[in-house]
Amino acid sequence: MTAEIISVGTELLLGQVLNTDARDIARSLCELGVSVFHQTVVGDNPARLRAVLELAKTRADIIITTGGLGPTYDDLTRETVCETFGVKLVRHEPTWAKIQAYFRDIGRPLTQNNERQALLPENATIFENDWGTAPGCGFVADGTHVLMLPGPPRECVAMLTHCAVPYLQALSKEALVSRSVRIFGVGESYVEDRIKSLVEHETNPTVAPYAHGGEVYLRVTAKAPDAETARAMTEPMVQKLQDILGDVVYGVDVDSLESCVVRLLTQCQKKLAVAESCTGGLITKRITDCTGASRVLLGGVCAYANEIKTSVLRVPAALIERFGVVSEEVACALSEGALELFNADFALGSTGVAGPEHEGVPGGTVFLALSERGKPTRCLGLHLGQDRERVRNAASGYALDLLRRRLCGLPEVIR
Amino acid sequence: MTAEIISVGTELLLGQVLNTDARDIARSLCELGVSVFHQTVVGDNPARLRAVLELAKTRADIIITTGGLGPTYDDLTRETVCETFGVKLVRHEPTWAKIQAYFRDIGRPLTQNNERQALLPENATIFENDWGTAPGCGFVADGTHVLMLPGPPRECVAMLTHCAVPYLQALSKEALVSRSVRIFGVGESYVEDRIKSLVEHETNPTVAPYAHGGEVYLRVTAKAPDAETARAMTEPMVQKLQDILGDVVYGVDVDSLESCVVRLLTQCQKKLAVAESCTGGLITKRITDCTGASRVLLGGVCAYANEIKTSVLRVPAALIERFGVVSEEVACALSEGALELFNADFALGSTGVAGPEHEGVPGGTVFLALSERGKPTRCLGLHLGQDRERVRNAASGYALDLLRRRLCGLPEVIR
Repeated sequence: MTAEIISVGTELLLGQVLNTDARDIARSLCELGVSVFHQTVVGDNPARLRAVLELAKTRADIIITTGGLGPTYDDLTRETVCETFGVKLVRHEPTWAKIQAYFRDIGRPLTQNNERQALLPENATIFENDWGTAPGCGFVADGTHVLMLPGPPRECVAMLTHCAVPYLQALSKEALVSRSVRIFGVGESYVEDRIKSLVEHETNPTVAPYAHGGEVYLRVTAKAPDAETARAMTEPMVQKLQDILGDVVYGVDVDSLESCVVRLLTQCQKKLAVAESCTGGLITKRITDCTGASRVLLGGVCAYANEIKTSVLRVPAALIERFGVVSEEVACALSEGALELFNADFALGSTGVAGPEHEGVPGGTVFLALSERGKPTRCLGLHLGQDRERVRNAASGYALDLLRRRLCGLPEVIR
Repeated sequence: MTAEIISVGTELLLGQVLNTDARDIARSLCELGVSVFHQTVVGDNPARLRAVLELAKTRADIIITTGGLGPTYDDLTRETVCETFGVKLVRHEPTWAKIQAYFRDIGRPLTQNNERQALLPENATIFENDWGTAPGCGFVADGTHVLMLPGPPRECVAMLTHCAVPYLQALSKEALVSRSVRIFGVGESYVEDRIKSLVEHETNPTVAPYAHGGEVYLRVTAKAPDAETARAMTEPMVQKLQDILGDVVYGVDVDSLESCVVRLLTQCQKKLAVAESCTGGLITKRITDCTGASRVLLGGVCAYANEIKTSVLRVPAALIERFGVVSEEVACALSEGALELFNADFALGSTGVAGPEHEGVPGGTVFLALSERGKPTRCLGLHLGQDRERVRNAASGYALDLLRRRLCGLPEVIR
């Protein structure tokens, strides 16, 4: 089977947004064993969209569109797709009820445009959108399978994972199971180098490395007549990858480094506090992203100004004066201050330069400290490049990993 | 003039990499006033690439390819483009000399494939590649302008900026200027409803609504012989949109709500503190995302556990007991606690239920408080739906907007 991805959106043609949807869909199709030979981007223009659809019909068995499902006048994908494939649009009552309830909940008035979002192709399988109001759908016409997904990446990825992939899987006779081996603290090329000889001639399961948000993960995918067999086929490969890569693997089939830390703290019933300077609340934010964070996180202080480090977290002004605010000494004093202020079992502290050089300290210099009640505080010094967002993101990751390694009884230094 | 971007690379079709090149080229073309109606991605397959090129010839004046210029056997863009346009490939001697020198420098043997990289279309303008070995080029054939750029993003962007944009500028007669009107607190369909009669028949400037990260923005784009005229043409439209939409417009051509708040605080030289419960550090994180945050932010406390609200922020335990932790009273006590702890001019407080129902309080219930030294604390109660990430994101936005409205002297209640 071959598929074509058609991304609809003038904002893509203007270069205002990055087409992450096409990448994510392409990856899922690859894992499903569906070949993609073409991806097309077209604007919110019915004539051009129709021409692109007509062409795609001639060269693909599956067409997946993204975008143009919103409530506004330039959202024309539903209408144009249905015209092209000779399919009627009808009001989908459960969707209409859901949209009405949503607007009642948030207390905003419904407009006529919102009603258009409930118009869906007759006899289509409806993909509910639990992350927005525009539902998607899948249907077959003229021998072509057509799937429509929303454009906003969060909604598109969720619907892809929960609706489109199972829908496509049902078209095929084989089950596909993917596992995710998650890694922190080493780069993609290092990982690739280490596993190359093991994976390069493997076709089932396949192993593909991905880099995302400063982390690397390996996707292990097996194909078999049923899911249970496919899953069993991934097992020895997942084990071998863990053996080769060692403790930089922080989990298999887990959501994130922060969820791994929350789970470990929950298991040992320990409480965490955080004192952040350069990471500006990001470590705390990442922990509170996880369900169940309230069982393990007491709280955090973002001590951005020096006088707050002193007044709230009791970092001696003389220490800041003597060693500079970006120093191992201040990082340790921050985490020790948080340990006391929150009466916690563990505390993390961060100080550094996220932006360009500051008072003689090069941009990207970061110190991360970990305090544990009754043990000496430890500090990790890093140089993380120049980009503000990247430095903050990487620093928060290293802080979480420092705690993960402590909770797992692993050695501290990893580079 | 219209252009089509053709990205060549099987790695794009497999979803292994994100197509940042297409976004960057599209953005540059938009700024040059060149319309892009199609972007296409095709693999390293000569027959399919040729078909895509033939189609692009029929619908664009300018074709820009990326990728497939490397030395390996699957890099076929040069050969296929030249065959399609009936142009001869000849060895470009300065390029050949440069490649030889490069390999001499790094001490690696030259292969026959490297010589292929010096084969370029006869009479083309050569784009030197100072960031890699594969040069790009631009030529005109059959009335179509064809530009070939390398695939690796660093090389592509550099060549785009330094070679392709000047080459295209010499071809184009019009300039395009885009402005961004940014809105918080109302939905995309509401905005569209309000502005519909004003914008629906406008072709220059055009107005397009976008929704992103819980906010809406309007893109106003004008075309004119020069940038100054185009900019002047956007001005009356931007003004009219602000008049119609009123104070939900938080800025024009600004980065974000948080940067707007940081700018306003900087102007009046006031200091901010934050006390967060349900937003878990996100308000603080958003403020510290902005350059210059250190001038206005003293710090924040994420008081996730109730005992921390009491011990660190002095929220009376009896108040929590009596009204519940998710209440107007506790929100106000949080922001007042932060005002005192940090000795700030303004403080924001948040409490709510980000996830599903908790202790009888429905999910999405949020109270946001704003304290200002010498004035009574004010509180905003909201219902923001069910999704954890969306609730937290919207709540942090409403908190920032509460402060923006106070700093601008606008009325508090907006819904």
